[in-house]
Amino acid sequence: MTDQPLRIGVALFPGFQALDVFGPLDCLNALSKLHPLTLTLLSSTLDPISTAHPAYPTAISQSILPTSTYKTAPPLDVLFVPGGQGARDSTPEILEVLDFIATVYPSLKYLITVCTGSGLAARAGVLDGKRATTNKRAWKDTTAVRDAVIWVPRARWVVDGRIWTSSGVSAGIDVTLAWMKEVLGEEVANEISERLEYTRQTDSSVDAFAELYGLV
Amino acid sequence: MTDQPLRIGVALFPGFQALDVFGPLDCLNALSKLHPLTLTLLSSTLDPISTAHPAYPTAISQSILPTSTYKTAPPLDVLFVPGGQGARDSTPEILEVLDFIATVYPSLKYLITVCTGSGLAARAGVLDGKRATTNKRAWKDTTAVRDAVIWVPRARWVVDGRIWTSSGVSAGIDVTLAWMKEVLGEEVANEISERLEYTRQTDSSVDAFAELYGLV
Repeated sequence: MTDQPLRIGVALFPGFQALDVFGPLDCLNALSKLHPLTLTLLSSTLDPISTAHPAYPTAISQSILPTSTYKTAPPLDVLFVPGGQGARDSTPEILEVLDFIATVYPSLKYLITVCTGSGLAARAGVLDGKRATTNKRAWKDTTAVRDAVIWVPRARWVVDGRIWTSSGVSAGIDVTLAWMKEVLGEEVANEISERLEYTRQTDSSVDAFAELYGLV
Repeated sequence: MTDQPLRIGVALFPGFQALDVFGPLDCLNALSKLHPLTLTLLSSTLDPISTAHPAYPTAISQSILPTSTYKTAPPLDVLFVPGGQGARDSTPEILEVLDFIATVYPSLKYLITVCTGSGLAARAGVLDGKRATTNKRAWKDTTAVRDAVIWVPRARWVVDGRIWTSSGVSAGIDVTLAWMKEVLGEEVANEISERLEYTRQTDSSVDAFAELYGLV
């Protein structure tokens, strides 16, 4: 594994949460200076894709450039699925994300979700019968999308087979570093967290936000 | 202060560090659901601006859309200056950033730097005689750019008057939340960190990376 380029994809959609994407991505940016990676930023079209969402018309936003449409996606080893306000939608763009997750999942080595991105994986059906977590503030709405998932309330992240799901927003950094430890070793995970000057959570069961939001 | 829209700008340049920008920005994205903000993403041109840098030709990268050129920048209350490999350059784009910082600084309420962004502020001359910190892994090179700065090795962030400088990469989240506490109060800073499920560092003097990189 360690000598081969890892082919990473990120599933983007209107109203994605910026840090859900760029927390993991900057870990991967740093990793790519040490280890060969390819990155595909997926969206319905090649137009800039924005964090803006109609639910918050006055909020500020940012737009990033996708590098591939879902229809033209190259083979991937790892798919990251972020959350955000848009992850709750059932727009054509989100239905395309759900379809992509369901279609590509069998060929992935790893599926990693951040925040309410696990709601998208759940709706795509790939979490049925599996343990998973999600954003703690959006717990009720997100877990309601799929009863067949074994939702774990107190967890910074949860691993079940090839699927890694994480808690809200900044937890995406911790799950990415934990996944790097699993795939590339402790030394690499430490090196990346040190380069980001990030004190990572290494215990997946430590989750102050499950209590804060009254889930345990 | 709390009732007025805060006019935020972010200084972008080729080879910026993604999390230096999107850590603070996602705090601001969340804040903008509670408090009126405007955001200007500044660059030399309106073309997409990339994290890519010639020093790492095989590294992965992302591109985001600026919303204004430096020449057409609107009035700003707060300017964020990220770091990254590009911050070490003396290209025309970086010289324009330095000129912009020096020109706009007198009219800013706050200047906030992340990582080696303090090297840009230092080169622009606005840190002369002031206490400041920077990325700990890039300490030697970054502090060497300007002797007239009082560089503080052990600090997650440093406040000197209107200027807030922070340590490497993820420290941008902590300095942004600390600045929110100062400007909008503890309750708002807590609310934003809870929405991001981020356990923030509230003590600016706690800095494990100063020791890790042998600076203290």
